[in-house]
Amino acid sequence: MPDLLNRPHVVIIGGGFGGIAAAKALRRAHVTVTLIDRTNHFIFQPLLYQVATAALAPSDITAPIRWILRHHRNTEVLMAEVREIDPQRKVVRVDDELREIPYDYLIVATGSRHAYFGHNEWEPYAPGLKAIEDASEIRRRFLLAFENAEKTDDEKEREELLTFVIVGGGATGVELAGAMPYIAKKALAPDFRRVDTRKTRVILVEAGPRILPTFPEDLAARAVRDLNDLGVEVRVGSFVTGVGPDGVTVGSEKIRARTAFWAAGNLSSPLGKFLGAPLDRAGRVQVSPDLSVPGIPNIFIVGDLAALVQDGRPIPGVGPAAIQEGKSAAKNILRELRREPRKPFRYWNKGDLAVIGRSRAIADLGWIRFSGWFAWVFWLFVHIMYLVGFRNRIVVLFGWAYAYFTSQAGVRLITDVERYKPPG
Amino acid sequence: MPDLLNRPHVVIIGGGFGGIAAAKALRRAHVTVTLIDRTNHFIFQPLLYQVATAALAPSDITAPIRWILRHHRNTEVLMAEVREIDPQRKVVRVDDELREIPYDYLIVATGSRHAYFGHNEWEPYAPGLKAIEDASEIRRRFLLAFENAEKTDDEKEREELLTFVIVGGGATGVELAGAMPYIAKKALAPDFRRVDTRKTRVILVEAGPRILPTFPEDLAARAVRDLNDLGVEVRVGSFVTGVGPDGVTVGSEKIRARTAFWAAGNLSSPLGKFLGAPLDRAGRVQVSPDLSVPGIPNIFIVGDLAALVQDGRPIPGVGPAAIQEGKSAAKNILRELRREPRKPFRYWNKGDLAVIGRSRAIADLGWIRFSGWFAWVFWLFVHIMYLVGFRNRIVVLFGWAYAYFTSQAGVRLITDVERYKPPG
Repeated sequence: MPDLLNRPHVVIIGGGFGGIAAAKALRRAHVTVTLIDRTNHFIFQPLLYQVATAALAPSDITAPIRWILRHHRNTEVLMAEVREIDPQRKVVRVDDELREIPYDYLIVATGSRHAYFGHNEWEPYAPGLKAIEDASEIRRRFLLAFENAEKTDDEKEREELLTFVIVGGGATGVELAGAMPYIAKKALAPDFRRVDTRKTRVILVEAGPRILPTFPEDLAARAVRDLNDLGVEVRVGSFVTGVGPDGVTVGSEKIRARTAFWAAGNLSSPLGKFLGAPLDRAGRVQVSPDLSVPGIPNIFIVGDLAALVQDGRPIPGVGPAAIQEGKSAAKNILRELRREPRKPFRYWNKGDLAVIGRSRAIADLGWIRFSGWFAWVFWLFVHIMYLVGFRNRIVVLFGWAYAYFTSQAGVRLITDVERYKPPG
Repeated sequence: MPDLLNRPHVVIIGGGFGGIAAAKALRRAHVTVTLIDRTNHFIFQPLLYQVATAALAPSDITAPIRWILRHHRNTEVLMAEVREIDPQRKVVRVDDELREIPYDYLIVATGSRHAYFGHNEWEPYAPGLKAIEDASEIRRRFLLAFENAEKTDDEKEREELLTFVIVGGGATGVELAGAMPYIAKKALAPDFRRVDTRKTRVILVEAGPRILPTFPEDLAARAVRDLNDLGVEVRVGSFVTGVGPDGVTVGSEKIRARTAFWAAGNLSSPLGKFLGAPLDRAGRVQVSPDLSVPGIPNIFIVGDLAALVQDGRPIPGVGPAAIQEGKSAAKNILRELRREPRKPFRYWNKGDLAVIGRSRAIADLGWIRFSGWFAWVFWLFVHIMYLVGFRNRIVVLFGWAYAYFTSQAGVRLITDVERYKPPG
């Protein structure tokens, strides 16, 4: 891109909702863009739990970042790990060779990982759900538990193998927990001879006073009833004090289970620490109203890594917020290049959605709240609409129709077994 | 299955074409069946190269073995690794606990892995293609080569990264080699800025005097012309003497390439050695005409692990032969239980097919030979017909249509990058 070299250089770190939205807003601008991600793919996060529960394939909800941006003639994509940001010299360093990439403007959209509240030793026993590899790991453990239950002659061991504990009652935890009973009890039941998969227990554990704290109380209560109908045991006010190979300890009670999953707590990407800016408890950068780092106006933070309060409430770490932030940061860069003043970011909450099992959901659009089957159809429609790529839309639609009408889980593939040795 | 316990027990090891066919032939018989496989899934091997070349997802060509056999009330499926066969005591030992499973009849259908002719040190630099994990590994290396080529500023390194060597000119090697140029030159070209993916070189190396030795000479010659049209360099009479991180040595010539794949040579499953029967050079068991092990009439070998000569020619290690052998072994067990004499196995060759690139194939049906576009359509039809599961048929058909009309590779997902560090 030799003719683009004299243009201002915008570097975007992270190819999630925020980074892709920023790149799209810069497509026709008089800048050159470099988007850096450690993977080659964008993940449609809201459907990641369906990969973890064997309903969809990893490739159904991902798309290569460079394919998404292939028509952006001013943009190049680099698959690399950013090790360091140097705001003084305006460079980012990537990979082991510590190659330097200079920038005029930097948009950091590196998101967050799940956090174990200082107990990283729990991670091997309760993997979280952020990357495609995480989803494959959860799928592997979920499906292997039934295979191991079929093998054992020990009734107690079998019960523990058929008990699944999910820690964290936010949307991810609720969606994971809601999907598992039906698959266990319907899809898997005819395939097993020794195990009665209808005896599967799914326990959702939440430390706070109720699940889905970002939703209105009546919708969250509806979600609890729906989860109970599906057979999920919901335990609120249950503080996890231990996670090990044989179960999860809640307060002083041990829930015996061979498989646990983690959907509680976020820890922001470590890149925030290079900026010398104030971080909040979760490691997020407390940004200025225009999403720039206080004192470093040419660096913007968007998505889960940014902490910003609007009208007295923190902007939530959800896809739509990241998209709006990415777009806003890009537009402020373009305003500045046109010598116009920047505009502060305003988050417009289009609404909150959570799906419970295979035919119910809750929706809070601000001006209207609804739940049940209609909310579920609305959820389906919104998610297909926002999914990236024609191929993925068709394949996901077909996968859902197939699962709905046959009660099957379409992607019950266990691979790389040697990577996980069941404890005990 | 308490009421089934007094029936004769048939144990089948391996859930590939041979093992599944045997289980199906025993479905309504007065026996109990245990099928043991170390994975949970059947693989439709003829399409595995399409997973390796990012056209299909792993779940599109696999199905859980217990799902395939879910209506077999006399059958149970065990996901376990068989460590040992004891023909004297009529037991197989599985997993690390050395649990014993007794049998009255045993059908061994464990197939083969790729062999490096005594050079196992080549394997890290040239993975083969048998399991789903192998296909994922080839896909990872194929796609990562372009990502790394985009990163480098060294023109020589970039050339080596864009050179792919495939060792072995059988059907697998031809199909892998034929698929790669189009994906590189069409699907990937618009996505890269620094790399000209049209400069990709694919080199197919075969030690014998010609590729596709099981096909008639005129069809193999046609395949060479088709491969050349696609841009594949075909080198016959080229004996590989070294494989390393920077290339493949053929005779005394070094082909500089950062990525190589192995499609030459089979080594049979190690279970054959427990039977005390004569093995051939590739480790296959030289079976009696009824597929039983000489001197052990209650053990049958089917599929790639069996060596049998019919009408002066060895029965080939292909899916249809394994299916017919599995069925034949099962039927001979049932004949014996009815006190009828066994029948020798007869292989009926329905024909050979190989696909070259995305719109050509060669077909040899014995009574007719054809090639080109019509052979390709015939190949598509046959493979969809034999694919297991309605869902997989629809998803594969859609995936092919999408790839055909958009020139895209639908599954360009790179995962588990940390598992492969590019050499050099």
